[in-house]
Amino acid sequence: MGVGRLSDQSRQWTAALVVIGDEILSGRTQDRNVAQVATWLNDQGIRLAEVRIVPDDQERIVGAVNELRAAHDYLLTTGGIGPTHDDITVDAIAAAFGVPVVIHPDARRTLEAYYRDRPGGLNAARLRMARVPEGAELIPNPTSGAPGVRMDNVYIMAGVPYIAASMLEALTGRLEGGRPIVSVTVGARAAESEVAELLRETEAAHPGVAIGSYPFFKEGQYGANFVVRSEDGELARECGDALMERLRKEGYEPVEGGI
Amino acid sequence: MGVGRLSDQSRQWTAALVVIGDEILSGRTQDRNVAQVATWLNDQGIRLAEVRIVPDDQERIVGAVNELRAAHDYLLTTGGIGPTHDDITVDAIAAAFGVPVVIHPDARRTLEAYYRDRPGGLNAARLRMARVPEGAELIPNPTSGAPGVRMDNVYIMAGVPYIAASMLEALTGRLEGGRPIVSVTVGARAAESEVAELLRETEAAHPGVAIGSYPFFKEGQYGANFVVRSEDGELARECGDALMERLRKEGYEPVEGGI
Repeated sequence: MGVGRLSDQSRQWTAALVVIGDEILSGRTQDRNVAQVATWLNDQGIRLAEVRIVPDDQERIVGAVNELRAAHDYLLTTGGIGPTHDDITVDAIAAAFGVPVVIHPDARRTLEAYYRDRPGGLNAARLRMARVPEGAELIPNPTSGAPGVRMDNVYIMAGVPYIAASMLEALTGRLEGGRPIVSVTVGARAAESEVAELLRETEAAHPGVAIGSYPFFKEGQYGANFVVRSEDGELARECGDALMERLRKEGYEPVEGGI
Repeated sequence: MGVGRLSDQSRQWTAALVVIGDEILSGRTQDRNVAQVATWLNDQGIRLAEVRIVPDDQERIVGAVNELRAAHDYLLTTGGIGPTHDDITVDAIAAAFGVPVVIHPDARRTLEAYYRDRPGGLNAARLRMARVPEGAELIPNPTSGAPGVRMDNVYIMAGVPYIAASMLEALTGRLEGGRPIVSVTVGARAAESEVAELLRETEAAHPGVAIGSYPFFKEGQYGANFVVRSEDGELARECGDALMERLRKEGYEPVEGGI
């Protein structure tokens, strides 16, 4: 099912996400940003079309960034914007755009104020967090001192999930998008392999809708949640109703909202 | 920092992972496979070098698979091998290799046995799970009936994490790799921005080692865990000891194993 199937409109806004960090690729850290960025983008009417997770390696970051910023309306990145030597995202994005890295005066002022009464003050490592690709704007970060960075259509955000969340909050409503995807979930105590044909037919009867099937095994019983998705909320609800009707006819008791 | 920095040996085994599924890109489902595949690969002495998350869209899957299977020793995929219409991974991988999809006789036998005494028997939807790209081998799945599939250097696995785990278990020791990466973790109640220079110097003094810095805020105190990684376990431990010594000199009490 392609994301392209969800709409009959010609204009769709899409985004990609590059997650930067050896700690994700080593398995040490469980990523939390993909899900929160995906959910937030959907609320903005923007589809998350692809994610790449790359190591803290400039060449690999540059490659992913240049490919994806050209292919999508927006590119978001998470990770690698802290004060230590392994934080190389800003340098990599500057290299991707072919511009130098500069200290952003507003970021410097913000960090000066933030660290004025903190031990160590604004040392060289902390000042790294004021570095941006030349020509970039800041993304406010109400949670800690260091801001995010916007460079053209690339939004550079923190890797720590609650800091990334506060940067997303600051961007809410500022990115142009289309209609959010509406999901209608229907659950049933049905093995998905028993209702596969019924699902396929219901989806085929509703162009502009995609149905995903997500099996589970709970309290000793097999079941599945069926997620009907469309940019057209009315159509998603119609298709959800049709699916419930079909399930009922086949002897399954559908559960609106899922199990 | 770059995966390439972790070793001075010429031969490193690398893998990529393609996570297939609209449910991950919509934010509905929190991925659990990246971390478990990463950890498992590391135990095999294989580095996870890149992850891509793509939608249930044949063209997008084919593109990612063909790029990554050529760039790495191994490519693993998770998701999209169930019995429903949105499970298109086998078709996409067959298309990527330019071969037809066939029913694998052993998979058919396994599914026949599995569904013999289950309601509905081996219906058409369930038989879909015996489909493989022509020339592929099966990956045993002790958990449920449907096997995984190996096609050349591509390993096709389930999206449900506990089923993917049992397929990984079946593959343990069967993929050639190098030396596993050894990690030594050192924690300290230090803001990473206060010890950034010390970290950089310690890393620079130990070629073949990468140090990652992962800040936290726990019980009202800032701190960070520093993860020293190398293919050379002895070197990782030496560097960890040197780091603890440096932290102690600067007045921080290092915690072996992390905080």
